[in-house]
Amino acid sequence: MHRQLAHLRHVMSPLDLSVEELDKIMDLAADMEAKPEKYAHAAERLKLAALFYEPSTRTRLSFETAMLNLGGQVIGFHSATSSSATKGESVADTVRVAAQFADIVAMRHPKEGAPMVAASVSPVPVINAGDGGHQHPTQTLADLMTIRTCKGRLSDMTVGICGDLKFGRTVHSLISALVRYPNVKFVLISPEELQLPSYVKEDVLKANNIDYVEKIRLEEALPDLDILYMTRVQKERFFNEDDYVRMKDFYVLNREKLQAAKKDMYVLHPLPRVNEIAVDVDDDPRAAYFNQVYWGMYMRMALMYTLLELEVKEC
Amino acid sequence: MHRQLAHLRHVMSPLDLSVEELDKIMDLAADMEAKPEKYAHAAERLKLAALFYEPSTRTRLSFETAMLNLGGQVIGFHSATSSSATKGESVADTVRVAAQFADIVAMRHPKEGAPMVAASVSPVPVINAGDGGHQHPTQTLADLMTIRTCKGRLSDMTVGICGDLKFGRTVHSLISALVRYPNVKFVLISPEELQLPSYVKEDVLKANNIDYVEKIRLEEALPDLDILYMTRVQKERFFNEDDYVRMKDFYVLNREKLQAAKKDMYVLHPLPRVNEIAVDVDDDPRAAYFNQVYWGMYMRMALMYTLLELEVKEC
Amino acid sequence: MHRQLAHLRHVMSPLDLSVEELDKIMDLAADMEAKPEKYAHAAERLKLAALFYEPSTRTRLSFETAMLNLGGQVIGFHSATSSSATKGESVADTVRVAAQFADIVAMRHPKEGAPMVAASVSPVPVINAGDGGHQHPTQTLADLMTIRTCKGRLSDMTVGICGDLKFGRTVHSLISALVRYPNVKFVLISPEELQLPSYVKEDVLKANNIDYVEKIRLEEALPDLDILYMTRVQKERFFNEDDYVRMKDFYVLNREKLQAAKKDMYVLHPLPRVNEIAVDVDDDPRAAYFNQVYWGMYMRMALMYTLLELEVKEC
Repeated sequence: MHRQLAHLRHVMSPLDLSVEELDKIMDLAADMEAKPEKYAHAAERLKLAALFYEPSTRTRLSFETAMLNLGGQVIGFHSATSSSATKGESVADTVRVAAQFADIVAMRHPKEGAPMVAASVSPVPVINAGDGGHQHPTQTLADLMTIRTCKGRLSDMTVGICGDLKFGRTVHSLISALVRYPNVKFVLISPEELQLPSYVKEDVLKANNIDYVEKIRLEEALPDLDILYMTRVQKERFFNEDDYVRMKDFYVLNREKLQAAKKDMYVLHPLPRVNEIAVDVDDDPRAAYFNQVYWGMYMRMALMYTLLELEVKEC
Repeated sequence: MHRQLAHLRHVMSPLDLSVEELDKIMDLAADMEAKPEKYAHAAERLKLAALFYEPSTRTRLSFETAMLNLGGQVIGFHSATSSSATKGESVADTVRVAAQFADIVAMRHPKEGAPMVAASVSPVPVINAGDGGHQHPTQTLADLMTIRTCKGRLSDMTVGICGDLKFGRTVHSLISALVRYPNVKFVLISPEELQLPSYVKEDVLKANNIDYVEKIRLEEALPDLDILYMTRVQKERFFNEDDYVRMKDFYVLNREKLQAAKKDMYVLHPLPRVNEIAVDVDDDPRAAYFNQVYWGMYMRMALMYTLLELEVKEC
Repeated sequence: MHRQLAHLRHVMSPLDLSVEELDKIMDLAADMEAKPEKYAHAAERLKLAALFYEPSTRTRLSFETAMLNLGGQVIGFHSATSSSATKGESVADTVRVAAQFADIVAMRHPKEGAPMVAASVSPVPVINAGDGGHQHPTQTLADLMTIRTCKGRLSDMTVGICGDLKFGRTVHSLISALVRYPNVKFVLISPEELQLPSYVKEDVLKANNIDYVEKIRLEEALPDLDILYMTRVQKERFFNEDDYVRMKDFYVLNREKLQAAKKDMYVLHPLPRVNEIAVDVDDDPRAAYFNQVYWGMYMRMALMYTLLELEVKEC
């Protein structure tokens, strides 16, 4: 028997949560971090089904840790080959089966829309834990919480986003989430081949009257930024070898370049990184990419707590 | 140190349990479903080793959930490639190792008889969680409990079994289990190529004086049935393409065909299904295949509780 | 937030622990075995990250069981393909991510030195759970504890080591650990091709003035031994087929050969075995290879307890 919920809700995109709801979840995550023992039994005997049709260490371990820290339990699978998918079972049937055992589902799937199919038949909340190039809402929650914690706010700042702005789902989600806060400007740093798609520029930035500029080189942009969000630039994305060779170092951050940045400009990256942030940046106090991992876990705790309609008494 | 047991018992086949024992386990499963908190600490600090040499999401998650719901813990592996089997370790040695850590073992293996080998050397109870085309006793427990819950009885009924009756292990086990209850008749629905093997007909049905008829088409059989057990019919099983094309729709259940069935004829399927039950049947109150998943978990709880000789006090 | 530690320590090799520390850990393991309930909540809400870049059922299940028996929890992955390694993440980054979630890390990796890289950046203790042909310290802890339990001492004995002494990492580690105890002699039994490397003979045995002899045949050596440590001899290691055919039975222990051994000569093997110990030896009271598995778990409990600086009150 599942936990009875007043409202069954799924989270497919970061925009499924209003700004007010997001603020509440961030406040909750901060409280969970400050007082973990208060929440240590909140989900006792409840279960998360972590249905990962493709490997994702960071996201899976984060969800699992979050459920364990709420006092709950975890079941699931780590890859399609260790699931019934190999026997031809549909995502819809798999989630219906999992929902016989679990109270909430986190689903990662290589195909866009798979978690939506799951949500359409699931009697328990489904959280999209990344569906192909589409959405990855809990990454965006981690990003927002990290920025809020580093800067003390989510408004009034200039956010640089650097690298592959064309295919990076985390970038599109982050932009869509940030335009809901007042006075956020963007500096979009990428090779021409990998610029932000026009539908994001039109439907998200221009439709909301958001200031933005586009740059080819990170160094030009750095001095003005309050936040720098780095992403990976893959060689295969370039039109030709010459362009790649000419520009690849434009999108690598290292300690030297970082000297040009503000003292309180924080560096984020959704990880895994390959070489786009040199390891000599790791010890800089502005390096916030492992903070994203840290806060991502608390945001997943807070999100599951919210969707499961849990309650704890103040001790 | 393992839990000391008065009687070390393994379950390789559903017939390892007498009708009286089965009835007790079903009563226990019903009580567990009604009062989960009563059993929530029964297996505290005891461990299940889930040794799955081939993937099986449903069965593995069901066993894991069952142990967690008893307050116990789970260790194990999900596929042969993530086990020591790749280094040439025998099943016997692997179970002896697992028994150093765990109090009970559930083993899934592609080879018939592997769990029997494990049981022959194991100091802790071993449950066969499916061995090739041979036996899958906890599936049968799930089937029986679902029928009992839906119909209120396991006797006095006409059971239709449809699809691949030749190779389907769940079908043979279910028939062997049901003939022990009074006045159960069978309608065996399959293409000629996939009829019930004669050793089952002779040794199980005829030896027990059980009424049965064989049919080629599901539609002909439907009106008389109290239970319809569907299984998958694979194209490869047919002798020739023509037969397959001519007959494949005979073994597909959909909402239209279901109109001919009794109002209280329940539909079971061991899952995963591919297309032999159309999704338009899912919302029909007679669709009981997800109930099998639900009850299967409680039957595994009750079985492990019994084999581990656990006890709880009435609160 | 990790548990605050007075001293952050990693264990890469068995020699990272002094003889005094080892003795303490063995005493602790013995106490844990005798009074498991005393330690059942010692690591409550602490987490082990089991980062296994290659499968190892025995070692992984042992670590997981150890953490569960301390009242803690486990997260992790079982193979490189289900980890972020497939996306090109470095071991250093993966451990930094895992350390956001967990309080201690056990790492298995096919490449020598990978756990050392992890330790160099990790804010939480890292235990090497086997790195290629290099080190596997918790196997050595299991070996030592088994010998101590069987014989009542780790000094004053003749230890035979049989099989592949050239490539066997467990053998090199065990020798290095045992030479620290007084009056331990070695009989090294192997084909010429697979003799102990000269750097172990020179740097470990001769440098410590340890008595040793080399033998070609197990039968010759058996009567003098107090401990026999068997390892696998792989066909591929031989220079030519003739040698292999001629000698392969020299390194197989069976019940018949065992008659020549002392009544209190215990047989160890790091497992998995293939055929180098016949199954007819398993029931002999001198067969101690499954005891190694048993004690290995308690030694991992004791090691993690020590590295995490845990404390329990005497009940």
